[in-house]
Amino acid sequence: MPLTTDQQNEIDSQQAESRPTRRATVPALEDILYQAIPVLDHGFVRVVDYMGDDAAIVQAARVSYGRGTKKMRQDAGLIRYLVRHRHTTPLEMCEIKYHVKLPVFVARQWIRHRTANVNEYSARYSVLDREFYIPEPEALAVQSTANRQGRGAVLSGAQAARVLDILREDAARNYANYQEMLNEDDAGNVIDPARDGLARELARMNLPLNIYTQWYWKCDLHNLMHFLGLRADSHAQYEIRVYAEAMLETVKRWVPLAYEAYLEYQLGGTHVSKTGLAVIRRLLAGEAVDQESSGLSAREWRELMTALDRDG
Amino acid sequence: MPLTTDQQNEIDSQQAESRPTRRATVPALEDILYQAIPVLDHGFVRVVDYMGDDAAIVQAARVSYGRGTKKMRQDAGLIRYLVRHRHTTPLEMCEIKYHVKLPVFVARQWIRHRTANVNEYSARYSVLDREFYIPEPEALAVQSTANRQGRGAVLSGAQAARVLDILREDAARNYANYQEMLNEDDAGNVIDPARDGLARELARMNLPLNIYTQWYWKCDLHNLMHFLGLRADSHAQYEIRVYAEAMLETVKRWVPLAYEAYLEYQLGGTHVSKTGLAVIRRLLAGEAVDQESSGLSAREWRELMTALDRDG
Amino acid sequence: MPLTTDQQNEIDSQQAESRPTRRATVPALEDILYQAIPVLDHGFVRVVDYMGDDAAIVQAARVSYGRGTKKMRQDAGLIRYLVRHRHTTPLEMCEIKYHVKLPVFVARQWIRHRTANVNEYSARYSVLDREFYIPEPEALAVQSTANRQGRGAVLSGAQAARVLDILREDAARNYANYQEMLNEDDAGNVIDPARDGLARELARMNLPLNIYTQWYWKCDLHNLMHFLGLRADSHAQYEIRVYAEAMLETVKRWVPLAYEAYLEYQLGGTHVSKTGLAVIRRLLAGEAVDQESSGLSAREWRELMTALDRDG
Amino acid sequence: MPLTTDQQNEIDSQQAESRPTRRATVPALEDILYQAIPVLDHGFVRVVDYMGDDAAIVQAARVSYGRGTKKMRQDAGLIRYLVRHRHTTPLEMCEIKYHVKLPVFVARQWIRHRTANVNEYSARYSVLDREFYIPEPEALAVQSTANRQGRGAVLSGAQAARVLDILREDAARNYANYQEMLNEDDAGNVIDPARDGLARELARMNLPLNIYTQWYWKCDLHNLMHFLGLRADSHAQYEIRVYAEAMLETVKRWVPLAYEAYLEYQLGGTHVSKTGLAVIRRLLAGEAVDQESSGLSAREWRELMTALDRDG
Repeated sequence: MPLTTDQQNEIDSQQAESRPTRRATVPALEDILYQAIPVLDHGFVRVVDYMGDDAAIVQAARVSYGRGTKKMRQDAGLIRYLVRHRHTTPLEMCEIKYHVKLPVFVARQWIRHRTANVNEYSARYSVLDREFYIPEPEALAVQSTANRQGRGAVLSGAQAARVLDILREDAARNYANYQEMLNEDDAGNVIDPARDGLARELARMNLPLNIYTQWYWKCDLHNLMHFLGLRADSHAQYEIRVYAEAMLETVKRWVPLAYEAYLEYQLGGTHVSKTGLAVIRRLLAGEAVDQESSGLSAREWRELMTALDRDG
Repeated sequence: MPLTTDQQNEIDSQQAESRPTRRATVPALEDILYQAIPVLDHGFVRVVDYMGDDAAIVQAARVSYGRGTKKMRQDAGLIRYLVRHRHTTPLEMCEIKYHVKLPVFVARQWIRHRTANVNEYSARYSVLDREFYIPEPEALAVQSTANRQGRGAVLSGAQAARVLDILREDAARNYANYQEMLNEDDAGNVIDPARDGLARELARMNLPLNIYTQWYWKCDLHNLMHFLGLRADSHAQYEIRVYAEAMLETVKRWVPLAYEAYLEYQLGGTHVSKTGLAVIRRLLAGEAVDQESSGLSAREWRELMTALDRDG
Repeated sequence: MPLTTDQQNEIDSQQAESRPTRRATVPALEDILYQAIPVLDHGFVRVVDYMGDDAAIVQAARVSYGRGTKKMRQDAGLIRYLVRHRHTTPLEMCEIKYHVKLPVFVARQWIRHRTANVNEYSARYSVLDREFYIPEPEALAVQSTANRQGRGAVLSGAQAARVLDILREDAARNYANYQEMLNEDDAGNVIDPARDGLARELARMNLPLNIYTQWYWKCDLHNLMHFLGLRADSHAQYEIRVYAEAMLETVKRWVPLAYEAYLEYQLGGTHVSKTGLAVIRRLLAGEAVDQESSGLSAREWRELMTALDRDG
Repeated sequence: MPLTTDQQNEIDSQQAESRPTRRATVPALEDILYQAIPVLDHGFVRVVDYMGDDAAIVQAARVSYGRGTKKMRQDAGLIRYLVRHRHTTPLEMCEIKYHVKLPVFVARQWIRHRTANVNEYSARYSVLDREFYIPEPEALAVQSTANRQGRGAVLSGAQAARVLDILREDAARNYANYQEMLNEDDAGNVIDPARDGLARELARMNLPLNIYTQWYWKCDLHNLMHFLGLRADSHAQYEIRVYAEAMLETVKRWVPLAYEAYLEYQLGGTHVSKTGLAVIRRLLAGEAVDQESSGLSAREWRELMTALDRDG
């Protein structure tokens, strides 16, 4: 369970409050506002604020004075048009803020997306909690031989057990040593008054990369969908993909029309290369094409055939 | 008056609505939400959405689970600390969206700030309205001789009248020719069915830079204050400064604690150079310092003496 | 001719110099360094500096200590892989700087791309030259009826002549009035010593949007290709597309391997939507599909058939 | 020593080469191009490419056709003017690229600066080297009591020895377990052919935050100086400050005029708050002011007195 009782109480009390506003609101998103959606063993994603809705996209696209919405059907059409033609500026008019708890090695991938605002829990200022990501055995995959940065089959039971033992023991030992260097116990009390505590900004360097951190992360809809398009992709590492998938569900609640448009034109479609396009044309003309004659690499050929639902 | 009756009605009807939300709300800002604050002769700024409040800054700084506010006094202290030490990430957690109507030459300065989202009215897609910025006579200043990009004294009455005539006549003529090229009158009807209308994306090139455009502009609090710090500054061109000043008032309503902190540490303070600091030290030591012996340029000396309330 | 003799001399003398460097160099780009490539009637693009080459992309991707290049064939393969999988960070390690002269209405579209550095000629500080974009008659197109932001057929001769007269006359008159307000003639001399000159920052507002401005514009390769992908596209306005096309030629000289990869995977390919993919699958299965049964809009259907080289 | 012989050879051979270029060159920077400047125990910073020089700033500020430099003295004056008035766009026209080797916990602070391009060594793709930051004993400081995110006195000898033992042992053990999970030894050979190796993207999570990583990092001069201003500051953590200080030396070689201007107006000066300014005015008027009557907090008072070289 990723939350303590105190934390859950704070969330519940915040969710129980309600105030009037003249701004656009999205009841389906308000329903889950502040709630922690569990991800991995100790992580979560929760929406803590949002700005705008589908109509706000339309309003910005028309630079209108009022809500500016026309019929639902017309709004959907305009949003599809914007997404299809990469007219992204109106989509940037919606903003969402998440509170995320995640392992540091995931945070290191995530932060590479520079078009968001981030405020991370500071291990210079505070002591990190004793929470480490320990994968489920079925997530313990062998190094892929086909793809240098991917995973292959799942480890056998005995081997998986050995890996989990290592991860658990090293995490426990490093954290205990972190506390010893800080000279501070779980309750925040001094362990040995005769000793000094090492500065937090130094002691943290002993913690392994599977320790959990947390941050507030804020992003506009366009850049969020770009991020999710890359991170919900099958090539992304499993441990970040599960965050992206949980966030996609919140987007679906928030801006259902934009979500559908992204699914149609970005996430659900595919980019076909110049050579790939030529292959499709030849196939449609009834020509027999195989990988050798296609001009595509083996991997490109395989991916195109998969996209076209063919055996290849 | 910058708004038509239809536009005002749309604004009024939007402002009359109210919905419940679990998000942070700011009643003082809700009071003026959607309302057009007049700027220049036909321009305006209006807040159309916002995310977060002073407490959201504190919440992000503490990466907390609930509202996380402590006593008002402590919150104010934390926000001052953040602004003073340029720990800007928690300040980026607040976002505001404006609808702005402004002359094109002002828009061209404004857009240089790249850390905002902008969606501008498209003159490729739509016909621009016949609205031009014609300065008040007291804004018609002579080219400054001291500062190559500044203004000096106000033009004399007769000279000002001549300038205003030019601006009005050229705007009227160019707009009439814009309509003739479009082959479209004020009501959007075809003028001469025997002629074709030039593409809007071409016809617009005949319009002068004082025509009004409009956009939705969205920015986080930190980058907004950086923008306002530069544009509400006395070195900024008057025509953009009046927008910045109107926006500062909305910030004061929105996040009063952050506003005060910016006033104390950024807008109201001054940056003293290395040499300027040496001058102050010498003055405090009772030494007589003049511009020649200061190591400062004449302009730097003058600005330092002004900041220190001295004759120089 | 977009350049004065003085300007051409300055360019020539800069191009005549040569110095030794230990940095990566690209002889094919050095050949045209500083040279103005004419665009439109008075505009140009010229490369004034660059950083990196194809090998620098490989070097960054491998985070290597030396030049790190392997065989040409392997480098090309790696670059293709990076572009295909949108691993853009190594591509951002190349940077290029242009000096561009362009009409203001083109500059206003261009500046919307925020991921570049820009330094524009200041009309607050200096007087703009008397140079206006006057289209070739064959560029004077009728407003498209199919596409609200596009062009249709070319205007007839008489109508084109009338448009050109308007553009020329309004430009001449507005510029003359600009000079009168400035009280400054072509040579920069005071016209009438008995009058004051209006501040430059005010007088410029009388100039139409087809006046030329100029800027230094600097961008990394990845963001440049994103910009060129949008602006060399057939949906882009002709007047910006010609700049994008001229710049594509400089990219081809600079990083030929990356250029080919972008052509293969971005510019020369196409994004197929989820529904479009389903259509291709049905066609490959031998099914007869028309627009009605496709689930695509008329425009989407037309574009997909064009991409597939079919009549539709 | 941070480099292997192979790496040093690669650097030397790259530095031995020289090619002609028409671009601006900076001999003082070419002298150290590619050379690793040691930082911490295994880290380094090395300049691997650069674009522009002091004259390029002047050239961009004037949007000129040729080198555009006037007398050295005038160029220095213009650059000082730009830095002083925060006219940063011409300063963004210079770009520099570094190869940096640094501990992961330092990389996590560094990456928060979003206005740079980064390409990091991938631990999904490759195996990390066995190199960990182990501080010098004199860098092992006690947690500060005055400043929650700072350091106090240095740890005593025995306590420091204990901390160093922990850091060394945990690093060694976690790395050995990393290799066991990968089933790969130092030479990259399989340890036990009967076992599978865990995917690299998973095994890395066992490594502590003091392991070294490396990246290519590219930034424009303005954003670089902003970064260095924050990270060379006395409030910054020592382990990142030493990188910032090493980089400042490279800036001094690269753009000496801009460096001097930043020293004068940014790094060497100080920002005085509104209240601080009032205090200086009162002091200059001969008034006795102490912290209580100043309106400043104890910490603000102390910092102002330090800046003014007074006892307080």
